[in-house]
Amino acid sequence: MAISRILIANRGEIALRIHRAAHEMGIETVAVHSTADTDAMHVRLADAAVCIGPPPASESYLNTAAIISAAEITGCDAIHPGYGFLSENAQFADIVEAHDIAWIGPKPDHIRTMGDKVQAKKTAGALGLPLVPGSAGAVETMDEIRAVAEEIGYPVLVKAASGGGGRGMKVIPSPDSLENLVRQAKSEAKAAFGDDTMYLEKYLGNPRHIEFQVFGDGNGNAIHLGERDCSLQRRHQKVFEEAPSPVISAGERTRMGGVVAQAMAEMGYRGAGTIEFLWENGEFYFIEMNTRLQVEHPVTEMITGIDLVREQIRIADGKNLSCSQEDIAFAGHAIECRINAEDPFTFAPSPGKITYYHAAGGMHVRVDSGIYAGYSIPPYYDSMIAKLIVYGKTRERCIMRLRRALEEMVVEGVKTSIPLHEELIRQPDILEGNYTIKWLEEWLEKRGEADAA
Amino acid sequence: MAISRILIANRGEIALRIHRAAHEMGIETVAVHSTADTDAMHVRLADAAVCIGPPPASESYLNTAAIISAAEITGCDAIHPGYGFLSENAQFADIVEAHDIAWIGPKPDHIRTMGDKVQAKKTAGALGLPLVPGSAGAVETMDEIRAVAEEIGYPVLVKAASGGGGRGMKVIPSPDSLENLVRQAKSEAKAAFGDDTMYLEKYLGNPRHIEFQVFGDGNGNAIHLGERDCSLQRRHQKVFEEAPSPVISAGERTRMGGVVAQAMAEMGYRGAGTIEFLWENGEFYFIEMNTRLQVEHPVTEMITGIDLVREQIRIADGKNLSCSQEDIAFAGHAIECRINAEDPFTFAPSPGKITYYHAAGGMHVRVDSGIYAGYSIPPYYDSMIAKLIVYGKTRERCIMRLRRALEEMVVEGVKTSIPLHEELIRQPDILEGNYTIKWLEEWLEKRGEADAA
Repeated sequence: MAISRILIANRGEIALRIHRAAHEMGIETVAVHSTADTDAMHVRLADAAVCIGPPPASESYLNTAAIISAAEITGCDAIHPGYGFLSENAQFADIVEAHDIAWIGPKPDHIRTMGDKVQAKKTAGALGLPLVPGSAGAVETMDEIRAVAEEIGYPVLVKAASGGGGRGMKVIPSPDSLENLVRQAKSEAKAAFGDDTMYLEKYLGNPRHIEFQVFGDGNGNAIHLGERDCSLQRRHQKVFEEAPSPVISAGERTRMGGVVAQAMAEMGYRGAGTIEFLWENGEFYFIEMNTRLQVEHPVTEMITGIDLVREQIRIADGKNLSCSQEDIAFAGHAIECRINAEDPFTFAPSPGKITYYHAAGGMHVRVDSGIYAGYSIPPYYDSMIAKLIVYGKTRERCIMRLRRALEEMVVEGVKTSIPLHEELIRQPDILEGNYTIKWLEEWLEKRGEADAA
Repeated sequence: MAISRILIANRGEIALRIHRAAHEMGIETVAVHSTADTDAMHVRLADAAVCIGPPPASESYLNTAAIISAAEITGCDAIHPGYGFLSENAQFADIVEAHDIAWIGPKPDHIRTMGDKVQAKKTAGALGLPLVPGSAGAVETMDEIRAVAEEIGYPVLVKAASGGGGRGMKVIPSPDSLENLVRQAKSEAKAAFGDDTMYLEKYLGNPRHIEFQVFGDGNGNAIHLGERDCSLQRRHQKVFEEAPSPVISAGERTRMGGVVAQAMAEMGYRGAGTIEFLWENGEFYFIEMNTRLQVEHPVTEMITGIDLVREQIRIADGKNLSCSQEDIAFAGHAIECRINAEDPFTFAPSPGKITYYHAAGGMHVRVDSGIYAGYSIPPYYDSMIAKLIVYGKTRERCIMRLRRALEEMVVEGVKTSIPLHEELIRQPDILEGNYTIKWLEEWLEKRGEADAA
């Protein structure tokens, strides 16, 4: 088998990213797009394009039948799902493979397992990944809860088994307040879900989000490509990512990287994946695995020199990993700024026509974006319109280069988050790498108060 | 001394390149510009700008008094001359230093020596660089000429000492035709220059242009950063450059790089320089040294990761070289396409307003350019408007990436050489790295004939 024509089942910058990797390998591309994306750059550049329906995504980018038909009609022998949309849909992956089309992604069973939160934790634990310490299952009596809490160590989190959205969940700072808070959580859970079954977990008060990039060949060989620090988040959306993490030493990278690579090898994992951890006080706690390419993959590419999309395509084509763990060297520092079409202060989306666009250029500056002057950003999709990725020999030099690159970047006609990034990379905490997953929201709140005063 | 404000005595992409490096080091910039360049991008981005006169360059970019005044008025403590204009003007460098302003360039005496062709060859020979073999000086009698020709080996070139423009110059392919051709050359020389003094040189029929990047700290430490192959030329103008050269082995790079670095160390050379060679049948022949940054410096930056402009500024600031020869590793392959505002078939200049501009993006693609949509290219200067520089792990991957990057690049309103590059990188000889300094002109001629037929 040799992949010769890839259907790109996605849109925006990632569709263009896939198109670029394919063309660089001499592989043709087919774009499938909604009626709202007829003028998208990757649609113009692809060797063929098929309209698969109107927005919203459920009518087009999630329409598996239309996508499979498009692949068959245009003679595609592989499908790359990008991120989001169908990328972690095991059933779609099954269908693709059933049609003898190469699925540029992990084995469907692994997507399935890791897509189920409970199964994912179980699997991760069995593979030796560190989990957030907690009760083995439901905790019944107050004595039992107290005993488990003592074992885990305060603060602990008591959570409703049927819970969600923070309801039926309480942080217990110390033994004094335990009884009271457990009662409150139970009554909230009962009221909200009709079920007051509780379990306990270690409470991570102010962790960082650190994730490891992994790659497997599906035959028991796997590597890691180091970590990314994605702690800068607003409403669980990453805003700015960097590699390496300012808090992870080379030794720690090697150790934890070894653990995740070993886990993937044991699993027989195929393709690209990301193991996400919370990190606090030097300890990693597994939270989930993403069985796909991540938005922030370019920072890893910048510090390793490895083209992750090319690697994905090679593996789906039955080839070996292009390098072994010993070949991978980490050099320098990379930061990605997600540039969204949104108000940089209120975060209100700002779709519409881009009247002027000028990308930053020069040494070690990369722009991944599907926008161009005259392009209209449709209101139906994610607001991310560009990724600015910058490399430097050191974190300090990377930040200095990022500043000048942001100065050069011009997007007119819509509001963008460029001014937010310009402000962020001048904050002392960011310069020092001293931030956690709570930092951005707290900073935004303070900024809002300062503006109001 | 610590440089805090650099005057950029240049225009176009190189002015922006210098601005970027300075800002990334936290150094302010002052742009000096002609009345034709008021809207240049680096003028907009610089911390201050001073208009120094109208075009042509003699009234502004070559107006040393105006530039020195601008530096003094704006409090600059350093001047970067870029390439061209005053960059190899030893007298200007003297004036700059006499004003206690750091000259971001070599010692004036070295500029002077290497700017004089005769002196440069003498110096290069004394420093152990291989020269084109030839007669020690003038050759008098036919017997003497025959003896020297035998020693050098045929073909040889007989040249008028007062000659120029090819007059009084003949290629002697073999001993049979020697007498006849020498007589012709002498009578041409006599008629043209009133002097028939002749000298002999080895004739290089079809060489490549290969140059080594060097850097010295001015105190006897020097390094080389490998070679660039700039054989693709039209009328002595480079069109496309690559690093490493397809014909130079790692061993040869180390050997010849060692020779040039040793020469620079002995000379006490300071800053960036380029030693240009012709190369034929595995032998290098020194032609000249450029005592400045080259247009094609980014290909070296791509394969070494070293920021050459930053290095220039550091050295001018009295710092050491940031790395030793052992620290420098060569990885992958880089190609630069010079994009000119000119007809890609007739090469007629095409100044005017850029109505639309979209730079190529993505992994390992770098664009160095001062143009933007709405910018008017003035007719007074060099036609180069952008450099597209692409990196790949191998030469083949670099070329594949270059193809897709050229596809993405859009410049409207003026004609550009993009279509020429798109054609060039599909020619079998280019794909195989099988080209010399004559290749492009011969190919253009054949293309012209094919078009006419």
